[in-house]
Amino acid sequence: MSALRFPNLPPSEPQGSDLLAQERARTTFSVNDLSVYLYGEEYLERQEKFLALIENEPAFDKSNRYFLGRTERFAGALRKDHALVKMSQEQKWTPEEFQHADILIDEPGPFGLHRGMFMPTLASQGNAEQHEKFLKPALRYEIIGCYAQTEIGHGSNVQGIETTATYIPETNEFEMHTPYLTACKWWIGGLGKAANHAVVMARLITNGKDFGPHAFCVPIRSMEDHSLLPGVMAGDIGPKFGYNTTDNGTMWFDHYRVPHISLLAKHSQVKPSTGEYIKPPNSKLSYGTMVLVRASLVGYARINLARAATIATRYSAVRRQFVDKDTPKKMGSQIVETPVLDYSMQQYRLFPIIAAAYACHFTSKEMMRLYFLNMKNMESGNFSLLADVHASSSGLKSLTTTMAAASIEECRRACGGHGFSSFSGLPLMLQDYAPNVTWEGDNYMISQQTGRYLFKAFRDLVAQRASGKFNTSQITNPTLAYLNSYLDNPDLKCPVTTPNQFFNPEIQLAAYGHRAAHIVAQIVHALDVEKRSWNSMLVDIYNASVAHCQLILVQNFILGIRGDMPQPEGVVAAVLPAAAKEALTDLSNLFALHQIHKQPGEFLTSGYLDANQVSMMGKAIMDLMEHKIRPNAVGLVDAFAFPDYHLNSALGRFDGKVYEAYTEMATREPINQTDVIEGYQQYIKPFTNPNNKQGKTMSARL
Amino acid sequence: MSALRFPNLPPSEPQGSDLLAQERARTTFSVNDLSVYLYGEEYLERQEKFLALIENEPAFDKSNRYFLGRTERFAGALRKDHALVKMSQEQKWTPEEFQHADILIDEPGPFGLHRGMFMPTLASQGNAEQHEKFLKPALRYEIIGCYAQTEIGHGSNVQGIETTATYIPETNEFEMHTPYLTACKWWIGGLGKAANHAVVMARLITNGKDFGPHAFCVPIRSMEDHSLLPGVMAGDIGPKFGYNTTDNGTMWFDHYRVPHISLLAKHSQVKPSTGEYIKPPNSKLSYGTMVLVRASLVGYARINLARAATIATRYSAVRRQFVDKDTPKKMGSQIVETPVLDYSMQQYRLFPIIAAAYACHFTSKEMMRLYFLNMKNMESGNFSLLADVHASSSGLKSLTTTMAAASIEECRRACGGHGFSSFSGLPLMLQDYAPNVTWEGDNYMISQQTGRYLFKAFRDLVAQRASGKFNTSQITNPTLAYLNSYLDNPDLKCPVTTPNQFFNPEIQLAAYGHRAAHIVAQIVHALDVEKRSWNSMLVDIYNASVAHCQLILVQNFILGIRGDMPQPEGVVAAVLPAAAKEALTDLSNLFALHQIHKQPGEFLTSGYLDANQVSMMGKAIMDLMEHKIRPNAVGLVDAFAFPDYHLNSALGRFDGKVYEAYTEMATREPINQTDVIEGYQQYIKPFTNPNNKQGKTMSARL
Repeated sequence: MSALRFPNLPPSEPQGSDLLAQERARTTFSVNDLSVYLYGEEYLERQEKFLALIENEPAFDKSNRYFLGRTERFAGALRKDHALVKMSQEQKWTPEEFQHADILIDEPGPFGLHRGMFMPTLASQGNAEQHEKFLKPALRYEIIGCYAQTEIGHGSNVQGIETTATYIPETNEFEMHTPYLTACKWWIGGLGKAANHAVVMARLITNGKDFGPHAFCVPIRSMEDHSLLPGVMAGDIGPKFGYNTTDNGTMWFDHYRVPHISLLAKHSQVKPSTGEYIKPPNSKLSYGTMVLVRASLVGYARINLARAATIATRYSAVRRQFVDKDTPKKMGSQIVETPVLDYSMQQYRLFPIIAAAYACHFTSKEMMRLYFLNMKNMESGNFSLLADVHASSSGLKSLTTTMAAASIEECRRACGGHGFSSFSGLPLMLQDYAPNVTWEGDNYMISQQTGRYLFKAFRDLVAQRASGKFNTSQITNPTLAYLNSYLDNPDLKCPVTTPNQFFNPEIQLAAYGHRAAHIVAQIVHALDVEKRSWNSMLVDIYNASVAHCQLILVQNFILGIRGDMPQPEGVVAAVLPAAAKEALTDLSNLFALHQIHKQPGEFLTSGYLDANQVSMMGKAIMDLMEHKIRPNAVGLVDAFAFPDYHLNSALGRFDGKVYEAYTEMATREPINQTDVIEGYQQYIKPFTNPNNKQGKTMSARL
Repeated sequence: MSALRFPNLPPSEPQGSDLLAQERARTTFSVNDLSVYLYGEEYLERQEKFLALIENEPAFDKSNRYFLGRTERFAGALRKDHALVKMSQEQKWTPEEFQHADILIDEPGPFGLHRGMFMPTLASQGNAEQHEKFLKPALRYEIIGCYAQTEIGHGSNVQGIETTATYIPETNEFEMHTPYLTACKWWIGGLGKAANHAVVMARLITNGKDFGPHAFCVPIRSMEDHSLLPGVMAGDIGPKFGYNTTDNGTMWFDHYRVPHISLLAKHSQVKPSTGEYIKPPNSKLSYGTMVLVRASLVGYARINLARAATIATRYSAVRRQFVDKDTPKKMGSQIVETPVLDYSMQQYRLFPIIAAAYACHFTSKEMMRLYFLNMKNMESGNFSLLADVHASSSGLKSLTTTMAAASIEECRRACGGHGFSSFSGLPLMLQDYAPNVTWEGDNYMISQQTGRYLFKAFRDLVAQRASGKFNTSQITNPTLAYLNSYLDNPDLKCPVTTPNQFFNPEIQLAAYGHRAAHIVAQIVHALDVEKRSWNSMLVDIYNASVAHCQLILVQNFILGIRGDMPQPEGVVAAVLPAAAKEALTDLSNLFALHQIHKQPGEFLTSGYLDANQVSMMGKAIMDLMEHKIRPNAVGLVDAFAFPDYHLNSALGRFDGKVYEAYTEMATREPINQTDVIEGYQQYIKPFTNPNNKQGKTMSARL
C-alpha cells in the first residue's frame, strides 16, 4: 500500500484521449494500410496472438521494471529468460517468432548471447562432430554459452588479443592461458553468471608459432553444480550505463587444459600429435556474417527510432504549453494552450525522426535482401557483390545507430521534464540502446572500411575512364553510378529556383550523390596527390562514409515508396495505397531535405547548392511540416504498431491518458510505501526537532 | 568476500603509469601555473584541505556509489546531506566553501533545493517578519524547504500553473487548493520525503480576482514527527534517468488553509481583511536572479566539460589500439599499438571538448562579473546592462549546457566499450547532468529570449543609422558592435589565403560576428518584411541565439588569455606565464575554428567564407591538433585539478593504473559475492542438469 495517493480529479481540459482522437480523425490515410505495408498481415496477427500470451506471463510483467536495483533486475531477467525459453519450446516457435517475442518483452537477458553469438559461431565455424557435441545440446539449452572475444585491453583490434591457446602434442590438448591482466576477457554477455560454456577467441600457438586469434569452444562451469571449473575464473564486470539485466562477464585462465576438439575446426585445423596448422581456405567467407549482423542493426535502429518517435509524438499532441499568439488555439470560445506539436521547433526536432525510422525500415529490408543474395552468389564463387555490400553495411551500421542513439535522446528532451522520468520509457531505452554505437565495430572505426572501398572504387573508375576502354556496362552498382556521374560533371549545379522543386527525388539524389562523390574525390586527391597520411584524413573519411550512407537511405526511401525496390526472389512487392503513399512521400522529402538544411556545409562546398537555395529549402521544409506532415503525425507513428506493453511509457500511451498513468506509476515507488522515511530519526530530526519536547518545537501549524 | 578475483599479473607493456609520465614530461608549460591562473592559490589550497576532511568521512565515501539501487542511494544521500550540514556547521564554512565541498562530493541530495531555491526565494521575496519566521530557522535547518513551482501539467509556462491560493478575509487565511490532476506539483527537489516546508507558487485569488502566480511559504509536514499535515498530500515521483539521490516530489492540496503571513510579501501584498491586492513595483528586478542562476549554470557546464575531458583524455593516452601504419609506435625496437590519442579522429573528438571547458571558464567568470555589475547598476536605477546580460545569459545557458551534455556523451563513447561501464564515472555524470538542458528554461525555449533581444537591437540600430543622427558612441556593448560592423559591410569576405592566417583572432571574431549578424538580419527581414509568423521562425531563432553565444565564448576566450578581460571592481587580473599562454592560445584557436569546420553552413551562407577557405581551415585544425595540442593534452586536463576522489573513475585516474583499478572495482559487484548465482537452481539447472543424476549429465570436463 502506497502512502502516496492522488486526488480523484481529472486533468484540466482538453483531455489527452480527446486530443489524440482528434489527431486520428484528421489523418489523411488508413493507418492499418500503412502498417500492413510495413510489416505484412502475418506479423500484425502474430503480434496480437503473442501479446495475449506474453502479457499474461508473470515473468514478463513490466510493471516493476523501473523500480528495481541491478541485483533484482538481473534476477528477474534470468527468470524471464528461463520462462521465454520454456514458452518457445512449448509453442515450438521459429527463430523469427522467438525474436518477435523477445522484442516485445524488450529486456536484454543472460541467455541473449547464447542465441546471438555462441550458437551462430558453432554453426558457422564448427565441424560436424562439433555440431553434435556442442551445438545440439546448446539448442536444448543444456549447454548455455557465451562468446568471449573482447579483452579488457583489446576491443576493436581483434588481432591484438593476448589470451593464448597452446597446443600440447603430448596430450593432444590446448592450454588456455591469460598472460597479462590486460588479457582478461571482458564485456562478455552471459559469461558472468549464466554460461557454462564459452567460445573463446585465443591466439593459437602450435610448434612455437603464433597463428593469431582462433575460436575455441570450452566448458567453464561444472555441469553438475554450475561452479567454475579449476583453471577458470569468471564473474560479472559490474554495473553499466544500460544492459544491467545482462551479466556481462570477465574470465581468465590459469594454464587451463582443453581437449583437441575445442578448436572450432570447420575452417582452420591443427593436426593431432604433429601440431601442424592447416589454414582456412577463403577468409572472405567470414565477411558474410558481419554483413548480416550489421544489416540487422539497421533494423534494430529502425525499431528504436520508431519507438522513441511514437512516445514523443503522442505526448507532444497531448502536452500543451503557452499560447501561440499568431494562431491561438481555441476550445469553444476559450483560448487554451497550444499543443507543443504545433510549434515549428518541436516539429523540426520530431518529424525528421519519424522520417528516419521509415528510412531505416526500407534500407534494412534492402540490406537483408542483399545479404541473402550475396550469400547465394558466394556459394557459387561469385564475390562481385561482397565489397559493396560489406562497405555499405559497415557505414550504415555506423550511421543508423548514431542516428538512433541521438534521436532517442532528442525525443527524451522533446518530452520536456517528463522525458527525464523513467516512466516515460525513454531513459531505459536510451541506456539499453547505447552500446549499439560501440559494439560490432565502433562507429568511427568502421567508417574506415566504407571509406577504403569508396576510394578504391573511385580510383578504379578514374583509371577505367582514362583507359579509353570504359563503357557504362562497367557501372555494376549504385556506388559506381554516382561516382561516375560526378566524374562526368564535377561542376554540376542544382537547377532549383523555387522551394517546391526540392520535392523532386532526382534533385535530392543528385545533391546527395554529388556531395558524396565530391568528398571521395577530395580525399583521394589528398591521399594520392598531396600524400597526406591516412591518420590525418580520418575525419574526412568518416564524413565520406556518412555521405555515402545518407545517399543509400534517401535512395531506398524513394524506391520503397514508389514500389521500385528490388524484392527477394519469389517475393511479390506489396502495394501501398495512394493516400498512404502520399503521406510517406512527404516524409521521404523531409528526410532528404532536413539533413541538408541542418548541415548544409558539404552540399555548399561541393558546389552543388548555393546559399539562396539553402534558404529556399528552409521554407520548403517548414511548409511541408506545417501543412502536410503535422496533420498525419500521430497516424504516422500509430502505423508503427507498437502495443502499450512494448512501449511501457506513461507518456506514449495509445489512449493519451498520460497524467492518469504517470501518477499511478508514482504511487508504486518503493520509498513511497511509508509516509515518513526511515532516515528521518537519524538524519532529519536532529535538525528539525532536536529536543523532541512539544513545548520547544515550532508548532506544526503556523 | 568476492568470489571473483584477478590474476596477480601486470597489464602488458607499456604501463599506464609510464605512459602518463611520458605525457607529462612532454608538456610545454607548468601545469601548476595554469591551475593557479584558473582557480587562484586559495582555491587549490582549500581543495587540499577539504579533501583530507571529506575523504575521511564515511558518509562521503564513494566506493559503493555505482552498486546501489535507488532506495539505498537515496538513504545514503540523506545521510550524506546530514553529515555535510553538520560538518559545515562545525567548520563554519562560508557558502563558497560549502559549494566547494558539495562539488567534490558530487551527489545531488534531498537538501540541495533547500539551499539552492528555498532560502534564496525567502531572502529575495520575503519581508523582514518572514525572514525572522522562516529564513532564520531555515539557515539552522530547523525548517527544511523546497521550491514548489512546476506542476505535472505546467513547466516552462509558469503563468499557466493551476494551483490556487484564495484569500479568505473572514479568517485572514489563504486556502491552497489543487483543482485538477494536472495541477499536482511535480519534480520538486526535496519535496518527496525530506522537506517540512515548501515555497509554493500558486495563483493568488482575492476578492474573486485572479492575480496569477505568487509565492507562498507553507508548512507541509509536522515539526513533531514529520508526518504530512492534514490537507497536504506529498510523495516521491519515482525513478529518473539521473538525480536518483534526490527525492523529487509531488504534492497536492485539499482546501488547505495557511495564515496570511504565508504570502511572501516583499514585492506583492494582500491587505488583511479587505483582501486588497498591492502589486509589485518593478518586475525587472526579478530578472537579476535569473541571470545569476543561468550564469552559474555556465560555470557548472565548465566543470562537467572539464571532468569528462579529463577522464577521456587520460584514458586515451593509456589505451592503445591498432598500429598506425604510417607512423608505428615503438617501445625499444618492438612495434607496439598506438595510443588512441594519437589518432586524428580521437583528437577531433576530444580536444575541442578540452577547449570548450576553457572557453566556458572565461565566459562564466565574465557573466558573474556582469551579473554583479548589473545588480549594482540596478540598485541605483540604471537598467542599461540588463537586457543584454539577460539575453546573453539565457542563450549561454542554452548553448553551454547543450554542449556539456553532448560532450559527456562524446567522452563516454570516446572511451570505447569501457565508457559504458559505470566505473568509468561517465554514465552517472551524464545521467545527473542531463536535467541541465531542461531546467531553468528549456534550452530551445529560452533561446527565444536571446532572439527577441537581438532582433530589437538590430531594428533599433537600423533605425538609428537611418535617422542620420547615429554615431559610434551609441555602440554601448559588444552585441551592437558586431551588428553595426555587419551593417557597415554586409558583403564582407574573409581575406584568408593560407591556413595559418586563421589563427588571427580578428579573423575569427569577424567570422563569428558576421555570421551571427547575418542570421539576425535574415530573421528580421522574414518577420518584418515577409511577415512570417514567429512560430515559423523558431528554428532560425534558435540558430541566431547559438551564433550570438558562440561569438561570446570565442570573444571571452581570446580576452581571457590576453589578460584583456574586464575584472570585477578591486580585482587585479592574474598574469598567465608565457608558456601556458601559448598552450591556451592553441586551444582558443581550436575552439574558434573547430566549430566553423564542423558546421560551416552558416559561415558559408553568410558569404564570409568560401569553400576553399573551409578546406584550408581543415588543414589548419589538423596541424594544430597534431603538432601543438597533442603534446600538451594531458597537461591541459591535469590543470583542471580534479582529484581522483572527485572523478571517481577507473579510467581517468591520475596515476594511469586503469586496469588495476577497473578490475578491483568489479570484484565488489554484489552479484559476484557468490560464485553460483541464487537463480541457478530454479532457472538454469532445469535446462542444464534436469535429472540431477551424475551418470546422466555431461561430464564437467570434455
